[in-house]
Amino acid sequence: MKQKLILIMLCVSVSGIFAQKATWIYYPGDFEIWLGNDMQNRRTERGAFFPPFWKMDSHYVLVEFSKKLDLAKTEKVTIAVEGQYNVKLDGKLLTGNPSNITIPEGKHSLNIKVHNQANVPSVYVQGETFGSDNTWQVTFEDKEWIDESGKASDTSSGTVYLNAGAWNFNNIDTPPSKFKLETIPLDAVKTEPKENGLLVDFGKETFGFIQFKNLKGLGKLHVYYGESPEEALAKETCETLDFFDIKNPEAKDFTAPGSKAFRYVYIEKDENVVFDTVSMLYEYLPLEYRGSFKCNDNLINQIWDISAYTMHLTSREFFIDGIKRDRWVWSGDAYQSYLMNYYLFFDSPSVTRTMLNLRGKDPVTSHINTIMDYTFYWFMGIYDYLQYTGDEEFVKQFYPRMQSLMDFCLSRRNKNGLMEGLSGDWVFLDWADFKMSKSGELSFEQLLFCRSLETMSICAEIMKDDEGKRKYAELASEIKSKLFSAFWSESQQAFVHNRENGVQSKQVTPYTNMFAVLLGYLDTEKTEQVKQSVLLNPNALKITTPYMRFYELEALCKLGEQDFVLKEMRDYWGGMLNLGATSFWEKYNPNETGTQHLAMYGRPFGKSLCHAWGASPIYLLGKYYIGVKPLKEGYKEFAITPVLGDLQWMEGSVPTPNGDIKVRMDRKNITVSASEGEGYLSFESTSKPKSNQGTIENISKNKYRIKILANKGDYKITGKF
Amino acid sequence: MKQKLILIMLCVSVSGIFAQKATWIYYPGDFEIWLGNDMQNRRTERGAFFPPFWKMDSHYVLVEFSKKLDLAKTEKVTIAVEGQYNVKLDGKLLTGNPSNITIPEGKHSLNIKVHNQANVPSVYVQGETFGSDNTWQVTFEDKEWIDESGKASDTSSGTVYLNAGAWNFNNIDTPPSKFKLETIPLDAVKTEPKENGLLVDFGKETFGFIQFKNLKGLGKLHVYYGESPEEALAKETCETLDFFDIKNPEAKDFTAPGSKAFRYVYIEKDENVVFDTVSMLYEYLPLEYRGSFKCNDNLINQIWDISAYTMHLTSREFFIDGIKRDRWVWSGDAYQSYLMNYYLFFDSPSVTRTMLNLRGKDPVTSHINTIMDYTFYWFMGIYDYLQYTGDEEFVKQFYPRMQSLMDFCLSRRNKNGLMEGLSGDWVFLDWADFKMSKSGELSFEQLLFCRSLETMSICAEIMKDDEGKRKYAELASEIKSKLFSAFWSESQQAFVHNRENGVQSKQVTPYTNMFAVLLGYLDTEKTEQVKQSVLLNPNALKITTPYMRFYELEALCKLGEQDFVLKEMRDYWGGMLNLGATSFWEKYNPNETGTQHLAMYGRPFGKSLCHAWGASPIYLLGKYYIGVKPLKEGYKEFAITPVLGDLQWMEGSVPTPNGDIKVRMDRKNITVSASEGEGYLSFESTSKPKSNQGTIENISKNKYRIKILANKGDYKITGKF
Repeated sequence: MKQKLILIMLCVSVSGIFAQKATWIYYPGDFEIWLGNDMQNRRTERGAFFPPFWKMDSHYVLVEFSKKLDLAKTEKVTIAVEGQYNVKLDGKLLTGNPSNITIPEGKHSLNIKVHNQANVPSVYVQGETFGSDNTWQVTFEDKEWIDESGKASDTSSGTVYLNAGAWNFNNIDTPPSKFKLETIPLDAVKTEPKENGLLVDFGKETFGFIQFKNLKGLGKLHVYYGESPEEALAKETCETLDFFDIKNPEAKDFTAPGSKAFRYVYIEKDENVVFDTVSMLYEYLPLEYRGSFKCNDNLINQIWDISAYTMHLTSREFFIDGIKRDRWVWSGDAYQSYLMNYYLFFDSPSVTRTMLNLRGKDPVTSHINTIMDYTFYWFMGIYDYLQYTGDEEFVKQFYPRMQSLMDFCLSRRNKNGLMEGLSGDWVFLDWADFKMSKSGELSFEQLLFCRSLETMSICAEIMKDDEGKRKYAELASEIKSKLFSAFWSESQQAFVHNRENGVQSKQVTPYTNMFAVLLGYLDTEKTEQVKQSVLLNPNALKITTPYMRFYELEALCKLGEQDFVLKEMRDYWGGMLNLGATSFWEKYNPNETGTQHLAMYGRPFGKSLCHAWGASPIYLLGKYYIGVKPLKEGYKEFAITPVLGDLQWMEGSVPTPNGDIKVRMDRKNITVSASEGEGYLSFESTSKPKSNQGTIENISKNKYRIKILANKGDYKITGKF
Repeated sequence: MKQKLILIMLCVSVSGIFAQKATWIYYPGDFEIWLGNDMQNRRTERGAFFPPFWKMDSHYVLVEFSKKLDLAKTEKVTIAVEGQYNVKLDGKLLTGNPSNITIPEGKHSLNIKVHNQANVPSVYVQGETFGSDNTWQVTFEDKEWIDESGKASDTSSGTVYLNAGAWNFNNIDTPPSKFKLETIPLDAVKTEPKENGLLVDFGKETFGFIQFKNLKGLGKLHVYYGESPEEALAKETCETLDFFDIKNPEAKDFTAPGSKAFRYVYIEKDENVVFDTVSMLYEYLPLEYRGSFKCNDNLINQIWDISAYTMHLTSREFFIDGIKRDRWVWSGDAYQSYLMNYYLFFDSPSVTRTMLNLRGKDPVTSHINTIMDYTFYWFMGIYDYLQYTGDEEFVKQFYPRMQSLMDFCLSRRNKNGLMEGLSGDWVFLDWADFKMSKSGELSFEQLLFCRSLETMSICAEIMKDDEGKRKYAELASEIKSKLFSAFWSESQQAFVHNRENGVQSKQVTPYTNMFAVLLGYLDTEKTEQVKQSVLLNPNALKITTPYMRFYELEALCKLGEQDFVLKEMRDYWGGMLNLGATSFWEKYNPNETGTQHLAMYGRPFGKSLCHAWGASPIYLLGKYYIGVKPLKEGYKEFAITPVLGDLQWMEGSVPTPNGDIKVRMDRKNITVSASEGEGYLSFESTSKPKSNQGTIENISKNKYRIKILANKGDYKITGKF
């Protein structure tokens, strides 16, 4: 242990010697699957284990890691491994399980083969000039057989090697199996006797482990968790609880073994059981808030802040749906978290962890989360990921998993070549208060399918798979053309909801229409038709989940309705705040009252009061008010189009892969700076604008743009905005 | 614990109440994969971990078990589970992790869902009139979602349920994860000082854990294992060894943690380290020797006995190749073990365990064990399994895994529609002392491919998959016709070895020719040609592995050359006995001398001296001398065709699924009895034979047959045989 500590200190202090910092590596995607199994099987419902209902995959239990070395001089190398392992140097097996080896100068091949059933096989190798990292090769079948004479097989072919997976396990003593979120202690805000026990309030929605100071006695200690006081006090119907049998003859501090979501806890106990105070360990993923937003309207500021907090609470091992109930990784929910993440944390590992967990492994036996739309959101997540991060490496490693998932979809098309729910497929779309059919061909599913195929075509291009690129592009174009021929209603000037047995339904739901706007599938004429007949039509069917409001409001923003959207935000998110929300909800219907707001799924407290899809204002404010978005992969080119709506001023920052774009705007000034990439700031001004640097171009009446270059300091534009 | 013990006692004593004995159940095939991972990763080479080089799969980590019940009265039910779990009765989740529940009379559905990453999710349920067994349903994705109102999804469709897997885990306290082979203590035969240590001889090849009585002291204890004294004494080159650091201030018994193969161990130690005696724990799978063989020739009797012992040593968690070195599950080796098993143990669970481990799970990324021929032997093993056991349930559970493996093969055909090694494919065939090509199209591979397709067609019929049956039969017939057109040489009156770039090679190897005889692919004329030009041709290329001698001698037996084969057995297996063999070897070349016999793979002790494929006399003597084989699945119909060869008398027993067929024969008498099925005893007699019961029919000159019915006692036939 001493030696290890010294080693680490040297790594930090003598960077000349330890040129390359090591990190724990594993088969890419395997840690994500393993962690997901652990995490998603932690859900309980009233004390009963409540696991997911889809297939959970496993890591490869036998994995070979390898690296070609070319050393200028002899190096001492430290090897740490999770699992049973062997080490081969230049093809020769070393005796035993060496943890320290010496490699002479020159060219060498180093191979480590690891077996681990319970945890992910992983290695940490620290040489003097090299360390284990994602440049190492890894395979689950090395096919290294020998013939009768002892000659080794040709291993240069037939075996697929990937680059090793890695995250932030940079310490030899904290391997992947020891992964834990961070915790900090938090006190309760208020503790008061209630009914036969104690009601404790932590002041706002939170997540973590309940703690009892100086717990003593023999007997029962019952903890009922609530996102609302009503829930905590509802012993028979609250969603989560813990029953402890305390056997402490001497007082000692006690921490509940499982973390839970709550604002309130209600505690009942045997008289014999006593404690001093109730507190908690707040459990979280450490993430930097790189995006920001401030404006003159404090309600909007509060909505942004609570959105960010909601987003942080649900950004954990993965982007999860809600913190109280499922705590599962749901592809449709996660898709929105990806987008919000790009405007708040810009934490790419959280995106790829989530996408890899969702995808799992072959064979594909079901849609992702069993939901057809959720499979398509998975592809669309890659589309956005490429756009925002520019990380083509993800595609290069996982293109085969993308292909096999798309093959699964293609194999389930109906005789019209369209997607239709088969037995075992959940066609979800939305939780809606109106009746809608999930049968036959839903226009919405075809639309997502089309964008998924477009994504595949882009990925095929990255892979230089010309045949694939052509095939996927053709399929996408075929689906798009059928979307219009099968579902566009001239009489209603909108897409209808579905077609069953060849008969086009009369129902118009908002979904396909608003997504068609978002994906840019409509010409100017149809766009205007959809806007009037659906999006701004007061008689159109009403969306009651923040989930679909996300896209509805985005579509309106895209159509320049920022004023309208701000009002909707104040109404809808402001409505939740008025009801005391400290995080945003799974569903909100302004027409409900009192505890109606807490019920869902036929259960009085079934609704999640902290749901990722409730946090969309982060995304909307960043993308359509601050107005920053990438135009080329990884923000190599960006667009800045700030829109105040009815605000007097706003300022904010949008993260890019390795930098930030900062914008401040009021009615007379726009200030912009970028630290990477380049692009145009576009704006409207009723007076001729001026700038402190660069050249403002006049595009059309009152419309201007100016090229923004990175690291040029502030661009200050004055005008009448 | 007390309650559990009482329960078990009641199960045994009051069978009227506990009508149905429970057993631990799991997802079928999963225990076999899990156990194989554990077992095959136990190989070491000189102290270094030496794992397989193919993909190792995993059990499903989240599994749901279910059973529909119809109870005449209320029952108390005990539930034991390996893993985190929940219990649903009639769709309602019970609180916590109940281990005792009460189910009222009437119809119910009981569901138990289990998560376990490290071990196989498994359950043991004991009611009063029912218990967990292979009638329970099991799935890895139950797809039980609920909609917003709490309504459960339609679970009757879209989810594939299989019958649960089970073996012999009939005790609540010994779940699958605790599986261990049996052990018994054995003493050494001789212990003598040698060089700087002690050489211990256990009298014959054996397997287990070395033990030291009253081991005391601080220091090194080195154990070198040897199948020969030369190997044990070769500290630098013996294949397996154990280095222990002893820290026993007080004397205590010590057992080595890993079991190994050996007859000899050589021990060196620090002076300070002392012990009384060296002994061992013999480790074995308890199996009944149901088949038997005895005759007037003691050498043949000894060959049968040593074969049976070799077979038992290699019949362990699975049918493995050899006990010293690989201890892996190899499909080609196992295929022979299946056949020998039918004439010795008739232990079907050992066959299915091995087949399921070999198959693993989808996706198929490589041939089984990476070897093309070994994939085909897997299919052929099913062909024989159906014939010998009649167990169609195996096919019904695993047909999809058969299809996907065959799809893999079909996807790898070359432009001529034939199998040719692609990169990453090991074309093994045999370890031979002559040079043979593994390139291009090998006639041998097409022949095995053809039988594999025929097997698929039979299985498709069991599955009532008419389209599959037709497809596979057509493919088989296409391959068979190409086999003759591409590889039969009229000039050499034999199949040639291969075809490369369209050019038929000139080389004739024995393999395809003898297998074509065995599989019955040749007409009378070609059979005779192959017999003369290859099988009995003294100038033909010589086989030096017992592996291929298995088929060579079987082909000769099939052609009526029992006299010749007995001589070969005395020469070849007798040759090993002459050299002191106490189990049969991986390879034997009579032209080698001394320690040449121990070397292989370029290592002085690389050869395995206890290899399953060395035990073929069990099979040959049972099938072609005692002469018993099934004609219809599961011995519903059998053939008994005893042939003495040059023996004066022989007697033996051949097991059938639920009985035995017993045969005794000398030159004047044949006595036969069967306890299930029916069939003909066929024999030749130069005098008119008589029988104590039944009617003897004369078939042709000197050829007779008599119908044998089950459970009619002995049929005694006299004649001149």
